[in-house]
Amino acid sequence: MERERIVPFLTTRSLEPENQESPIHFLNYWQTPTKYFYLRNHFPYPFLTQNHLWLQISGQVRQPRYLHYYEIISMPTKSIVTPLECAGNKRNYFVPKVYGEQWEDGAISQGKWTGIPLIELLKNVGVSESAKEIVFHGADSGKKPGVEGNIHFARSLPIEKALHPDTLIAFQYNDQPLSLKHGFPFRLIVPNWYGMASVKWLSRLEVIDRPFEGHFQTEDYVYYPQRDKDKDRFPVTTMNINSTILQPLHLTILPKGSHEINGIAWTGEGVISEVEISFDKGDTWRKTTLHKNQYQTYAWVNWSYNWDVGVKGEYTIYSRAKDTAGRIQPLTAFWNQKGYGYNAVSIIKIKVE
Amino acid sequence: MERERIVPFLTTRSLEPENQESPIHFLNYWQTPTKYFYLRNHFPYPFLTQNHLWLQISGQVRQPRYLHYYEIISMPTKSIVTPLECAGNKRNYFVPKVYGEQWEDGAISQGKWTGIPLIELLKNVGVSESAKEIVFHGADSGKKPGVEGNIHFARSLPIEKALHPDTLIAFQYNDQPLSLKHGFPFRLIVPNWYGMASVKWLSRLEVIDRPFEGHFQTEDYVYYPQRDKDKDRFPVTTMNINSTILQPLHLTILPKGSHEINGIAWTGEGVISEVEISFDKGDTWRKTTLHKNQYQTYAWVNWSYNWDVGVKGEYTIYSRAKDTAGRIQPLTAFWNQKGYGYNAVSIIKIKVE
Repeated sequence: MERERIVPFLTTRSLEPENQESPIHFLNYWQTPTKYFYLRNHFPYPFLTQNHLWLQISGQVRQPRYLHYYEIISMPTKSIVTPLECAGNKRNYFVPKVYGEQWEDGAISQGKWTGIPLIELLKNVGVSESAKEIVFHGADSGKKPGVEGNIHFARSLPIEKALHPDTLIAFQYNDQPLSLKHGFPFRLIVPNWYGMASVKWLSRLEVIDRPFEGHFQTEDYVYYPQRDKDKDRFPVTTMNINSTILQPLHLTILPKGSHEINGIAWTGEGVISEVEISFDKGDTWRKTTLHKNQYQTYAWVNWSYNWDVGVKGEYTIYSRAKDTAGRIQPLTAFWNQKGYGYNAVSIIKIKVE
Repeated sequence: MERERIVPFLTTRSLEPENQESPIHFLNYWQTPTKYFYLRNHFPYPFLTQNHLWLQISGQVRQPRYLHYYEIISMPTKSIVTPLECAGNKRNYFVPKVYGEQWEDGAISQGKWTGIPLIELLKNVGVSESAKEIVFHGADSGKKPGVEGNIHFARSLPIEKALHPDTLIAFQYNDQPLSLKHGFPFRLIVPNWYGMASVKWLSRLEVIDRPFEGHFQTEDYVYYPQRDKDKDRFPVTTMNINSTILQPLHLTILPKGSHEINGIAWTGEGVISEVEISFDKGDTWRKTTLHKNQYQTYAWVNWSYNWDVGVKGEYTIYSRAKDTAGRIQPLTAFWNQKGYGYNAVSIIKIKVE
């Protein structure tokens, strides 16, 4: 009853452009309602016109084409439940601190995306054998400090990933047309990769025979592991194995008794195989119960643990996930200049009174 | 233009009860719009009926009375611009960490409150000479962990503070009737004191001849300076001298050139006399320009400093305020078990590229 009266709120990290995360209180939905879905923008929202209902496919193809919105949505569709996670999710937790939007745990949301497998569109135009990458151009543009003139958001995928049958040109979220803030009319959806790959307001696909060198491909969304130089850099691609404790909230006070500890876990390779928690800073670990949806292998996994606590005091609780690719969350995150891919164990402190 | 399209958001700290702070991005208003005003609740929102339009005055008075909303709003009014600050504002910054809602800088908002001086209502009923305190009862109630049964929110003021001509029974905020979430129909407004004194959904005033011992008077809103015991406890009353840097945002990257550093400063004793900033962790300080409203002595003061920066690097910037009562912000806050009254210098780190 009380919950009905609650107005939706996101947590603001910046206003121009609009960057807002989902409060941890709202990450317990299997399909995040649009109003609670995090917003990560590089530019002001694009001003859309009738022209944006046309999707252009050009470059190294036999038959360049414009496809209209109504043509695309009349093709056979596919639906996938997958989280989108900003590569900067949890940046706030890096030590030493990293400059940029100070995302906590909520630059991730999950829902049901419906669209056309990209491979079906590409069959339609005939990709040439010289094709190496596909560039996805968004309609959003503006200025970036340190970059001359106006630029627009664009990202590429290697041709193999682009042709994966689950890489979608999506036009629905949770069975509704995409909202204006989340990419209407078309958004690329790239399961397993960080969110920057899932380009919003998609206006043009460009098949190219060389590596794409746009700003958001070669400058941003790159790991720079060295403190002051660009040495050893490599691109941000798949999501790291990760988990977040949702309940109880960090730094809350609980009475003695029985409490459920729960959260989510997700990965960009294979599927989640196990989530464990520790009450002794990682010396020993206990298995949690996984609540999996076997039909949605990209989706995050809910997990829970029943905690009976009879002794007053302060408790530190860690969670860590493992996946079928053999990956496991580390105790310390991999530090990098721009603060991408944070995936150290999730930590909360609780006081029992 | 862009700003017009932004939807209001507060930052959620808890949902039951609803506790949400104003993003630092919205603290630059002289009068915070209601939608950006922080929410600090102890219980679910009360279910209001016609009965709540009557304000009861009872206890040590010659003539106990019920006053109706329309009777009160027809009396001569007074308007004051004052901030309300939650006693737990900035709790997140205490070291060692304190349990409870992790407020950052936004559990403070300011606006124009209009109402009747409490002293005028009290003249109406005749306070007896034995009166020591006045208890303000709110209509909000519910359960508190560790307390038996249902309790309601109630706070008292010493009779001298209650009789101060600027202690108001407010029924308007920014020239509109109080909103349901902010205390409709009546809210006590106590300038200079932390927000817990400004009781919402005021339903009853009770004049008493002894110290009030309600939960929110003698258990909560009390400073406990010792880590594990109750020794040396004393009540939370007036706001500490304080300041917050609003622009630039902590951990942002700026280009070389000229930037305005600005913020707000406020106090619960006297008025703000000076705000300084330091670029060397407090060794030396530079004066900022104060933008005061001489007619609103309770209001926060806006301050600014023009920073010309020509050298790339990382910068740490402190702000500290002074008031005419001789108080000055300390480098380290006064730690207490429940995390009230944080007022150490405001600190941001900036990277210039």
